[in-house]
Amino acid sequence: MKEVTAAIITIGDELLIGQTIDTNSAFIGQELNKAGVWLKRRVAVGDAREEILDALAQQSRDNDIVIITGGLGPTADDITKPALCDYFGASLVVDDEALRNVTEIFNRLGKPVIERNLKQAEVPDTCTVLQNKRGTAPGLWFEKDAVVYAALPGVPHEMKGLLVDSVLPMIRGRFTLPAIAHRTLLIAGKGESEIAEIIAAFETALPPAIKLAYLPSYGMVRLRLTGKGEDGASLEADVAARFDELKALVAEWMVADEDISLPQAVLSLLHAKGKTVATAESCTGGAIARMLTSIAGASAVFNGAVVSYSNAAKTDLLGVDAETIVRYGAVSEETVSKMATGARAALRTDYAIATSGIMGPEGGSPEKPVGTVWVAVAGPESLRTHKFSFRFDRTRNIELAAQNALNLLRRFVLETEGE
Amino acid sequence: MKEVTAAIITIGDELLIGQTIDTNSAFIGQELNKAGVWLKRRVAVGDAREEILDALAQQSRDNDIVIITGGLGPTADDITKPALCDYFGASLVVDDEALRNVTEIFNRLGKPVIERNLKQAEVPDTCTVLQNKRGTAPGLWFEKDAVVYAALPGVPHEMKGLLVDSVLPMIRGRFTLPAIAHRTLLIAGKGESEIAEIIAAFETALPPAIKLAYLPSYGMVRLRLTGKGEDGASLEADVAARFDELKALVAEWMVADEDISLPQAVLSLLHAKGKTVATAESCTGGAIARMLTSIAGASAVFNGAVVSYSNAAKTDLLGVDAETIVRYGAVSEETVSKMATGARAALRTDYAIATSGIMGPEGGSPEKPVGTVWVAVAGPESLRTHKFSFRFDRTRNIELAAQNALNLLRRFVLETEGE
Repeated sequence: MKEVTAAIITIGDELLIGQTIDTNSAFIGQELNKAGVWLKRRVAVGDAREEILDALAQQSRDNDIVIITGGLGPTADDITKPALCDYFGASLVVDDEALRNVTEIFNRLGKPVIERNLKQAEVPDTCTVLQNKRGTAPGLWFEKDAVVYAALPGVPHEMKGLLVDSVLPMIRGRFTLPAIAHRTLLIAGKGESEIAEIIAAFETALPPAIKLAYLPSYGMVRLRLTGKGEDGASLEADVAARFDELKALVAEWMVADEDISLPQAVLSLLHAKGKTVATAESCTGGAIARMLTSIAGASAVFNGAVVSYSNAAKTDLLGVDAETIVRYGAVSEETVSKMATGARAALRTDYAIATSGIMGPEGGSPEKPVGTVWVAVAGPESLRTHKFSFRFDRTRNIELAAQNALNLLRRFVLETEGE
Repeated sequence: MKEVTAAIITIGDELLIGQTIDTNSAFIGQELNKAGVWLKRRVAVGDAREEILDALAQQSRDNDIVIITGGLGPTADDITKPALCDYFGASLVVDDEALRNVTEIFNRLGKPVIERNLKQAEVPDTCTVLQNKRGTAPGLWFEKDAVVYAALPGVPHEMKGLLVDSVLPMIRGRFTLPAIAHRTLLIAGKGESEIAEIIAAFETALPPAIKLAYLPSYGMVRLRLTGKGEDGASLEADVAARFDELKALVAEWMVADEDISLPQAVLSLLHAKGKTVATAESCTGGAIARMLTSIAGASAVFNGAVVSYSNAAKTDLLGVDAETIVRYGAVSEETVSKMATGARAALRTDYAIATSGIMGPEGGSPEKPVGTVWVAVAGPESLRTHKFSFRFDRTRNIELAAQNALNLLRRFVLETEGE
């Protein structure tokens, strides 16, 4: 089976001058990969006709599919549609259904339709129009010399909708794609290079059809096995067997044997045990609560949080006595322990996580340098504390503290509740 | 003056299969742009020798500077260094200073140095080694046929350090760069296309040396003027004059006339007035507290938050009477108002923000569909409420609710405190 390959061309000066972080390409890459299409190259070019034409010519030489995002919006710097007309020898015409969509969206918002919004309904006359249910700019599908092209708006939720609803089904209809099998696991508390040592022999022994990827993120590593083949059922079985081997090798540090985040793993664990949790956050400033509540259904397990940035908040809301804070300091094992037990009581939960630390750039001292974080986890019958020392910038220290605190709770729940 | 252009080549399968979001390129683009280098193209390729060589050849044809990131790490899929050796006709040799650095880092962490970590100290013998103070993989600087190349590790904080400390100074020493002047302002509460209408004549009248960029993000738009010229002082003056014109046109919706975020603008405003703030967050789940506390120095203004996910938390910690919740519902003007006044009292602040809503995907009803959010802001003498209706997914609804709540507070403070 011939490998089907794709390229992404993202268009916009804002990507080149770094004003926008390109999250679209990651999503498109994931979806293509899951569908069995190998994304061979991603290119970002500015809002310049020559650059766009050059990228289209280059990428269509090497690939079967070219996905174009960005530059379909209403502002003046958008020149993607005229460039596409040049490339495909097309002219712009008004698409009636797209026009109806634009008008409806503005009516619903109670806003007048202005000239530049109407232009969103103009499309090259040689394309198949992909109607956009989430916004005003339609997607455009072209075919030329055995290569297919899909041009999508750059607004992430519009792009995602069009890709999943229209582009992927059209790609599946147009190409014969291999079967793909993925299995992912999540590891916490062990670095990428240490894991690599532990599983070196396993990795070397993998057959060519199964690949291993390391996906490091804050304080965690995801390991993903990807198999590609012609027969879906036997491929699934092969990947599953290798995945079991891998799980056995990293069992000690494995947080989840599926592609979920640590907050999801913690919520699932508590849900399964019928337990609730609260947080008392000083240095993490609500980051743990934010992570947990970003997951739908968190309210079944998470009662709430106290972000006790001031010492008065620790005393008033969490019942930490003022003397403890004066005597040991806000960043201390004693204070963070009382914050955790206080949060359990104040928010009426089975478990609580508390954090107190110095995130930087200011506030460090020789005894408690920037990056010092005390974490406590409290349960119905016991309490556990841990001191972390991070050495990064404020943003990263906060992320690491939040992730490590969640993992401390996870281990504590597993060990005190039994598995 | 000849324009100096650059390309970024990011290397790694993880970027193509979408497992990593490329934040490095945005940072590099910003820094190059500030230095007067035009980033012409960004390319991402997989961990494949041919692909890397092809990208190097292509990008060096069109550009003066090629920045390469990724693929210098310790795991087996890293093949960047061998590919660079091929391209530059070099061989790998151990660099003594890099080796000392690797050993020191592992000693400090109390971990054994393993074989694959030692390989991090190997460098092509034709390069200038850029020592890495933040990690084990050094940066590599090459020159060939009037093009300069810098290969940097993909770990963001290591890449940033090497770029700022070593690569940019070397680029400034190597090329004659134009003067660059930037001015940015932040707008809330007005969409990109409406702003575009309002400033259409201004934009058309801009001289070719000054460009305007729209940088939309959740609920906000940043407008940035960038001027490029030979004489720094007159350029600054030209851009400043245009910026004053622009400010006058969008004054009504302008949050800040500098490149700061909304949370930063809110903290600065409260700091200037000597006031404090707290949040009582139901549907935003700590997102507002997280935004405020991500900024260094937030503790001077922000006392804390109650994330009242359960109704008991609203009653116990914020003093919302149970009857109000039963009678009007948790998502109601009445409940959110009491949450705001309760947070002011509980956290002893001048101001408080409260949020309660339905973020989805579940929990909506015909009267209160998903996306319904009540926000209240309370001050020493008055209270203001606003009902928002968002229509996106959970993540985006939370972001929008948090941003809009902060902006509601900002306007409330300005109007009640006087400007």
